Amino acid sequence: MFQTFEVTARPEQGPPRLSALREKITTAALDGFIVPRADAHQGEYVAARDARLAWLTGFTGSAGFCVALHDVAGVFIDGRYRTQVKAQVADVYTPVPWPEITMGDWLREHLPKGGRVGFDPWLHTVDQIEQTQKALIGSGVELVQCDNLVDEIWADQPAPPMAAAKVHPIEFAGEAHADKRARLAQTLKDAGETAALITLPDSICWLLNIRGADIERNPVVHGFAVLHADGTVDLFSEPSKYAGLEAHLGGDVRLHDPSSFLNNIKALSGVIRIDTATVPQIVADALGTAAKSGAEPCALPKACKNAAEIEGAAQAHLRDGAAMVEMLCWLDSQAAGTITETQVVTQLETLRRRDNGLQDISFETIAGTGPNGAIMHYRVTEETDSVLEDGHLIVLDSGGQYLDGTTDITRTIAIGTPPTEACEAFTRVLSGMIAMSRLRWPKGLAGAHIEAIGRMPLWLAGQDFDHGLGHGVGAYLSVHEGPQRLSRMSTVPLEPGMILSNEPGYYREGAFGIRLENLLVVQNAPALAGGDDHRAMLDWRTLAFAPIDRRLIVPEMLEPTARDWLNAYHAEVKTKIAPRVSEAAKEWLNAATAPI
Amino acid sequence: MFQTFEVTARPEQGPPRLSALREKITTAALDGFIVPRADAHQGEYVAARDARLAWLTGFTGSAGFCVALHDVAGVFIDGRYRTQVKAQVADVYTPVPWPEITMGDWLREHLPKGGRVGFDPWLHTVDQIEQTQKALIGSGVELVQCDNLVDEIWADQPAPPMAAAKVHPIEFAGEAHADKRARLAQTLKDAGETAALITLPDSICWLLNIRGADIERNPVVHGFAVLHADGTVDLFSEPSKYAGLEAHLGGDVRLHDPSSFLNNIKALSGVIRIDTATVPQIVADALGTAAKSGAEPCALPKACKNAAEIEGAAQAHLRDGAAMVEMLCWLDSQAAGTITETQVVTQLETLRRRDNGLQDISFETIAGTGPNGAIMHYRVTEETDSVLEDGHLIVLDSGGQYLDGTTDITRTIAIGTPPTEACEAFTRVLSGMIAMSRLRWPKGLAGAHIEAIGRMPLWLAGQDFDHGLGHGVGAYLSVHEGPQRLSRMSTVPLEPGMILSNEPGYYREGAFGIRLENLLVVQNAPALAGGDDHRAMLDWRTLAFAPIDRRLIVPEMLEPTARDWLNAYHAEVKTKIAPRVSEAAKEWLNAATAPI
Repeated sequence: MFQTFEVTARPEQGPPRLSALREKITTAALDGFIVPRADAHQGEYVAARDARLAWLTGFTGSAGFCVALHDVAGVFIDGRYRTQVKAQVADVYTPVPWPEITMGDWLREHLPKGGRVGFDPWLHTVDQIEQTQKALIGSGVELVQCDNLVDEIWADQPAPPMAAAKVHPIEFAGEAHADKRARLAQTLKDAGETAALITLPDSICWLLNIRGADIERNPVVHGFAVLHADGTVDLFSEPSKYAGLEAHLGGDVRLHDPSSFLNNIKALSGVIRIDTATVPQIVADALGTAAKSGAEPCALPKACKNAAEIEGAAQAHLRDGAAMVEMLCWLDSQAAGTITETQVVTQLETLRRRDNGLQDISFETIAGTGPNGAIMHYRVTEETDSVLEDGHLIVLDSGGQYLDGTTDITRTIAIGTPPTEACEAFTRVLSGMIAMSRLRWPKGLAGAHIEAIGRMPLWLAGQDFDHGLGHGVGAYLSVHEGPQRLSRMSTVPLEPGMILSNEPGYYREGAFGIRLENLLVVQNAPALAGGDDHRAMLDWRTLAFAPIDRRLIVPEMLEPTARDWLNAYHAEVKTKIAPRVSEAAKEWLNAATAPI
Repeated sequence: MFQTFEVTARPEQGPPRLSALREKITTAALDGFIVPRADAHQGEYVAARDARLAWLTGFTGSAGFCVALHDVAGVFIDGRYRTQVKAQVADVYTPVPWPEITMGDWLREHLPKGGRVGFDPWLHTVDQIEQTQKALIGSGVELVQCDNLVDEIWADQPAPPMAAAKVHPIEFAGEAHADKRARLAQTLKDAGETAALITLPDSICWLLNIRGADIERNPVVHGFAVLHADGTVDLFSEPSKYAGLEAHLGGDVRLHDPSSFLNNIKALSGVIRIDTATVPQIVADALGTAAKSGAEPCALPKACKNAAEIEGAAQAHLRDGAAMVEMLCWLDSQAAGTITETQVVTQLETLRRRDNGLQDISFETIAGTGPNGAIMHYRVTEETDSVLEDGHLIVLDSGGQYLDGTTDITRTIAIGTPPTEACEAFTRVLSGMIAMSRLRWPKGLAGAHIEAIGRMPLWLAGQDFDHGLGHGVGAYLSVHEGPQRLSRMSTVPLEPGMILSNEPGYYREGAFGIRLENLLVVQNAPALAGGDDHRAMLDWRTLAFAPIDRRLIVPEMLEPTARDWLNAYHAEVKTKIAPRVSEAAKEWLNAATAPI
């Protein structure tokens, strides 16, 4: 269960598998077949069985898809993966910059009138299919539902995950699932809907206060559910996973074999809500005209954590912070040039696991030293493993899954004597992180409206970074959770209880990377003397406590208010974490949190 | 032409006019009639003839509408005018908070099935009618086109404006109208369109390099135009206004009597672009299926000022800044308790007119002292005129129309000894204005993505203000010009050459108001050593130069970078403006721009 460093997919596997797939395409009287990264639940991680894109092409990124035609096979990848895809796929595959080039446009270019492209209707959402079909209007090219042709050629395809489900205790969940069901059922009634479809595993787990282990790093159970307007739920998930959970689920949650899902929903009457951005095409087809487009019923309630979830997250972060402090102390005790990235990853996971609350890491640790730090989604392998050299910065982005919360924290640490330009950029990244942490803003604003605050210090120096400032985080659920984001793309208003990351960075290709990340939770801001009485405002409570490397700070570049914040934060880190670490780490912490 | 202070509309005029209108509604076999503020050109200001809403109801705000039914007459007003409307309309009118309550919802509530509401199809855009019709689906209430019933009862309705048009010289316009027409025609050709409708007077004036005087404060000519894909234009505007402009317009601009407009466009063939947000319903009806929805062809090109327009704006601002400095010097020489708001307005206009470049003020000057300063759109009248007392702040928001540019500047000035909380709020407003002025940001962002920068200092103290941070400004055209805005509502990317105001404020009802405003122009930011080579960034050039009242600043509340900016700005004000003012003002300026 420890993170491995093996190269999981190799370019040479691609060509023979593509040939086999093309034979199946011919047999099915098609001209192509679409192989997405996603499974039927549209999560960021997929089970081994569902890693069809990686198995076929060798590309292991967390988003993208392949469209295999007879004479060309496009691998569509977004900006994060342009470099990675080149190393991972053989030249029978053609990388396609996406979403700059859409599937619809690409198909119009590569197929003649009459072309027929197959897709598995479990693996594509209603919106995805509609969008591509719109783009194909007038082209004579047609999308055709079919069986999954990859599954037909994948001889040793792993079995579906069968991990046992477990109860997520009320002390961590904070609200009984009967209450959640009743609360959400009321919103269905208010909208005149008889039921809502739920196809996202983390939504189902949140709603029913259960957790599972069907997907690495994500404590979820695979399944589909129907929430009825009377508050009862039909759950379609392998019944054997739920042994011993009968009392927890109770009579209002009816467990069914997944194979009965489609027939069951075909029989539903009334108005059935589906979220077209997440529901598979085959589900919409089964519902027919009963389907009505609406918000995923659990997404927003799940995002707004209750008091128990927030307190759990705070507790998880204290234990996680202690592991981080032990790690940073250990790292400083290693001479430059003596250890490698994989040793860093293993040491950090060892320290996290020493706390027996850890269930799993929350994602594959990113540990990039020197130039590797500039690769935003770097996952070290045996082939890329690099020595931490004098003058390097190492970006260490990691987190844990605990019963009481999910953590995600990034620190950038100096190895030996870092270059001046790296320290200057680090200070700007830190200034942005502090400005966002200190922010208070009027209720009603979304990530798009405040993200600039965390980027401004870099902007003023002509610098920026190419990822969002932050993402939502679950409560012992997915480390990336919607609908809220600190991103110029996000217009979902921020609400109390939402947990988000605040993670500005800076990346100098071929040289160094910098990222700092704390998790924060949105809260109602306390009234201030002289403030506007009538104005509801929000601010952040910081959850993460670990020192920020003072050796990388250029003190005279920090505004006085930022310096005050940093010193106060470090004082709090010391108070909160010192009682939880070894004597050696305590001594290290003392120095690491001294005021500047 | 000087600003007047008369009360232009009174509540008591409303009831008899409403009764007369209701008789016409009955005669027309209708159940109601809609009276908008807008004319057929959807501008912010209207000619006296088109001020139907004010004539009928007494409400003089720049946005809103009245829906007169037999038993109720709603006056729909937005948040800016909630207080003003109460003072201006008699109780036969019911103020309706808009857009919180839409016309559609209100009609559903107040009319039975079968209800018929009349509207003048010249005065409502396609979008407005479509939106209301959508909201009425299933209600049985119908919108019905009819003649303007207000015009039928308005015995002494003023005649349409007949001011002469004049050439806007190439030295200020920077681009010949033939070149503009060719440039825009190419975009029509590229889109497969044969022509585009233009119904906004400032678009027509920009396109043809003409100006007029049909609307106070706005140097425009009333008219409609058709831009053809061959670059020629049919202009429908009172031909007598264009005496002597034949050579300027040339053979490719064909002048027609406005009465021929509808018949002419009915005869157009091919695909005709209309902007449904600005084009009247009657125009869309005339075009029928030939109409295709698209961007207003002039809006974006007009917003991106060329080098001559930017240089003109800079020159206009220097002359305007000299008038402002004379004004601020004069104001400081008046003892507290000795002058009133109307004297301030008249003195400022007198000083502006002393510069013979002034064509008109660019809007009615806002001069609000003490509690009046907290009324964002305050226009002083004989009835509200107040004395500038010791301890007051006065908000002075004004601007000029010059041949080379349009100005709009706000300063807030201390009268005697201002209260501490006002100084603290002033320093926060100033900090926000400076933070925005200093900003540099990656190309592609819109107002929504950066506006927070100008509000953050207020937010941190639990304060905020209820208007946008800034609006677009024309080049000797409208002082409020789209499509760009510094507002959370604006997702139009900022582009080089766009002029915007940067005007944070703070308003304590019943006590004081604060606003500071400079006009800025977007430009390509110069490369910085150490900045990202591949990243195109934008920044601001400040156009406005006038001192900011140092007596209202709490120096220790300013971050060092903000203080540096202020001192550098004041040094520039002194250098640029001192050579243009009287000896007394020069001496005053010296002290007013001293470093803090």
